[in-house]
Amino acid sequence: MQALNLSEVASRVGGKLVGGEDPVITGLASIDDAGPGDLTFVNRHSRTDALDGCGAAAVLVGPEHEVELPAVRVDDPYGAFATLLELLQTDPDRLFPPLVHATAVVPADAVLGQGVAIGPYSVLGAGVVIGAGTRLGAHVILGCDSVVGKDCLIHSGVTVREGILIGDRVIVHSGAVIGSDGFGYLPGPEGIRKVPQVGIVEIQDQVEVGANVCIDRATTGRTVIGAGTKIDNQVQIGHNVILGKHCSLSAQTGIAGSSQLGDRVIAGGQVGVGDHIRIGADVRIGGQSGIIGDVPDGKTLFGTPALERGESFRLQAFLRKLPDLLQRVDRLEGSSPGSAAARTGEEE
Amino acid sequence: MQALNLSEVASRVGGKLVGGEDPVITGLASIDDAGPGDLTFVNRHSRTDALDGCGAAAVLVGPEHEVELPAVRVDDPYGAFATLLELLQTDPDRLFPPLVHATAVVPADAVLGQGVAIGPYSVLGAGVVIGAGTRLGAHVILGCDSVVGKDCLIHSGVTVREGILIGDRVIVHSGAVIGSDGFGYLPGPEGIRKVPQVGIVEIQDQVEVGANVCIDRATTGRTVIGAGTKIDNQVQIGHNVILGKHCSLSAQTGIAGSSQLGDRVIAGGQVGVGDHIRIGADVRIGGQSGIIGDVPDGKTLFGTPALERGESFRLQAFLRKLPDLLQRVDRLEGSSPGSAAARTGEEE
Amino acid sequence: MQALNLSEVASRVGGKLVGGEDPVITGLASIDDAGPGDLTFVNRHSRTDALDGCGAAAVLVGPEHEVELPAVRVDDPYGAFATLLELLQTDPDRLFPPLVHATAVVPADAVLGQGVAIGPYSVLGAGVVIGAGTRLGAHVILGCDSVVGKDCLIHSGVTVREGILIGDRVIVHSGAVIGSDGFGYLPGPEGIRKVPQVGIVEIQDQVEVGANVCIDRATTGRTVIGAGTKIDNQVQIGHNVILGKHCSLSAQTGIAGSSQLGDRVIAGGQVGVGDHIRIGADVRIGGQSGIIGDVPDGKTLFGTPALERGESFRLQAFLRKLPDLLQRVDRLEGSSPGSAAARTGEEE
Repeated sequence: MQALNLSEVASRVGGKLVGGEDPVITGLASIDDAGPGDLTFVNRHSRTDALDGCGAAAVLVGPEHEVELPAVRVDDPYGAFATLLELLQTDPDRLFPPLVHATAVVPADAVLGQGVAIGPYSVLGAGVVIGAGTRLGAHVILGCDSVVGKDCLIHSGVTVREGILIGDRVIVHSGAVIGSDGFGYLPGPEGIRKVPQVGIVEIQDQVEVGANVCIDRATTGRTVIGAGTKIDNQVQIGHNVILGKHCSLSAQTGIAGSSQLGDRVIAGGQVGVGDHIRIGADVRIGGQSGIIGDVPDGKTLFGTPALERGESFRLQAFLRKLPDLLQRVDRLEGSSPGSAAARTGEEE
Repeated sequence: MQALNLSEVASRVGGKLVGGEDPVITGLASIDDAGPGDLTFVNRHSRTDALDGCGAAAVLVGPEHEVELPAVRVDDPYGAFATLLELLQTDPDRLFPPLVHATAVVPADAVLGQGVAIGPYSVLGAGVVIGAGTRLGAHVILGCDSVVGKDCLIHSGVTVREGILIGDRVIVHSGAVIGSDGFGYLPGPEGIRKVPQVGIVEIQDQVEVGANVCIDRATTGRTVIGAGTKIDNQVQIGHNVILGKHCSLSAQTGIAGSSQLGDRVIAGGQVGVGDHIRIGADVRIGGQSGIIGDVPDGKTLFGTPALERGESFRLQAFLRKLPDLLQRVDRLEGSSPGSAAARTGEEE
Repeated sequence: MQALNLSEVASRVGGKLVGGEDPVITGLASIDDAGPGDLTFVNRHSRTDALDGCGAAAVLVGPEHEVELPAVRVDDPYGAFATLLELLQTDPDRLFPPLVHATAVVPADAVLGQGVAIGPYSVLGAGVVIGAGTRLGAHVILGCDSVVGKDCLIHSGVTVREGILIGDRVIVHSGAVIGSDGFGYLPGPEGIRKVPQVGIVEIQDQVEVGANVCIDRATTGRTVIGAGTKIDNQVQIGHNVILGKHCSLSAQTGIAGSSQLGDRVIAGGQVGVGDHIRIGADVRIGGQSGIIGDVPDGKTLFGTPALERGESFRLQAFLRKLPDLLQRVDRLEGSSPGSAAARTGEEE
């Protein structure tokens, strides 16, 4: 990054320079990695002794932190650090050269907004529409009649099937497949019979879709990803699923067909949600949990089948007492008036 | 879709017009989504009050249903609906233009059947054979000496490695990788040593392979996917696995190396099957279950390690009684003749 | 493969011909698949009656095995078999033709070592460096400024993002995505706010990365895959994860952000490791386990939340005794001096 004085850093993040020094900052790093020239940060509720032995030139701290290093005081140190990270992002013109590459297949009836960039060997189907400022990497495939909004980043190697709707400021990572057929079959006289999947996928504004994610098209109607929702790598979204707004699904989670999640649902990694399930708003689901029934708003769940998180951990703790409990019952039976052991005075 | 009178719909699905009206049908939709002009359906065992407030023009019903809307009566309403969905499918000539695109790499010794379509930038290795009527999307890679049968649909972005055998009427979705090396290693003096994976994958007729699925080639011999089997997105099939015919594996399931599944096995999502395991025919496995031993024909399993489904749920119910049980044993010890509490008459 | 006499086989693997015969070997196969002309093997600790009815021409056996078939005796029969499998590998010049294909996009500032092969439609970003002897399949994308070492195999359809470092003799399978953005967000006034991910991924020498694997770039600094580590298909590695050397992660395992694994950690399939967790060296984790806390060196774990393997299985066994235990406590309460049942002499 371009070198900055710490006082300039302070003004960029709306913070206050403390400690009297104004060193030159040439990099950004976590406490463990920080070396000369680096600015680091202390998490809002962390203790500052994590800084002991840290080689950073300066640190972003919260209102409650006292440190020896030159510092900038802000309300939210990690938020300020995130703002500064933008300075280190690779120039988008280097990542996505701002032109339509000569090898891109762009049919005559495609509609491209101003400033659309398309990388080498990308292929647009008939009738595709792309909004202004959207950039496609190399080897992106947009199926016929799909519509992509403004200022999106579609990374290299993404496949979008026909008729898909993508909103504005959406980011899709490499290897994601959007609009593949839902997994719908019927028993038939000659084995399993495929149900045609003729619906679409609607991805609303400011969604982020991780690498190698799959989002299936609806049987009829729409599979919907609500605005602002973030989907981590290798997540699977079944047909006719409706995700609310501002949800966050961690890696390898799977949502089976026709299930609905409310707004601001947070799921850890490898969560499984069965089909035709309704999950309320503001629900939090621990990693690897399995949801097999409806969930009201605001619950925090864990386990398979999932229980409220507290109960789940309490039962796990009780489970660990089971061997001891069994011994105690053996003993009770031994001393019970009706038992053979009690009659002969034996004890196990 | 092209507009149809309800009486025409009835004749297409072999049903009977009931209610005396013959409205024009212009679309197909689920009960929740249906609006003017739409035909919807009632599931075979559903109650018809789901139709209250439904805006559909007409409905497909079963023998036992009485409804107020114009209707077509059939034995299997969803089956009839699926038949009609075929009317809404995008013209395959629009999805897979019926030609070999000028940018496709087709070696001189490749053998293409009549009517084979190949999309832009697809790459065929030396010695590839493709049967009549098969269509490849854009960016499909067929490794050298692989053989694809007749009337297959290989969607954009599929990668097939060398020497793979694919039958007739197979569908493979985007991002699937068929024939990657099995995960086989040996301890060696300089760390882990790779075992060459020189076998192949055989995919039999009428299989469907989901998006981003991986099917590994065998170490020697074949990894086999039986005829009619359906594999959902992001499933992993290890080397030398043998899947029976007409199986159904839901998303994110993984089958480890050398395991065998009988015919008609149904696995929910995120199921894990360990290596070298034999699972009989007609076994049903609940979502997220983990199979660590052989399973006889016809079992229904759940949990990790998996038990028979009924027992698994019964034990979960018992587990929830454990805190109460512990209190009861505390009380029994308190009143037991030999206990200190009993001697002094105390109670906890 | 080229035909070999069994005596030649013996000399290639440093073994001893036993049985007096010297048949011609034309193939290699497992015991179940072996037919005329095939050489098979008996696992080191297996019983030789697995050979009953086997159609092989000859067999690789260990020091303790006595067999009737013509045989070669070695210390490690499967290791010797693996050595012979190399004879069956497809000629790399057929898999990866030894040239830079005319359609590959290679920028003027790319640096290619001697003998680099690049398949059709592969795309190199600005500033890419590739070491001698490395082969890229078709449709490989290397982001700008990424560096790939010597003698690597990057299979068709791999996507590497900008600035990634890959060592020597690394194998990456199709569909893998290396360097996608980490899943980092902050709550913000307008919903969830993306934290720029400006770090990189470092893949050390002799790593193997499976098909459709995702390895996220670090927020700052590096996500590291230690030398010799093997990663199976569909594994997810979060941002800032550090994997030790010679680890083995089976399919569909996920390691969440900032976690660290020591050397030689072995994880089964579908394992989940939470974020910011430290796992020691030589830890073994059973399939589907969920790790939610730090783990010292050398442990063997199973379950979610994971316990030591023995304890986990012991508790599962106790859990199955719970229904019986409940009955026993019912009975004890019936005969307890203070209970109504005891007073009246009833028994449940």
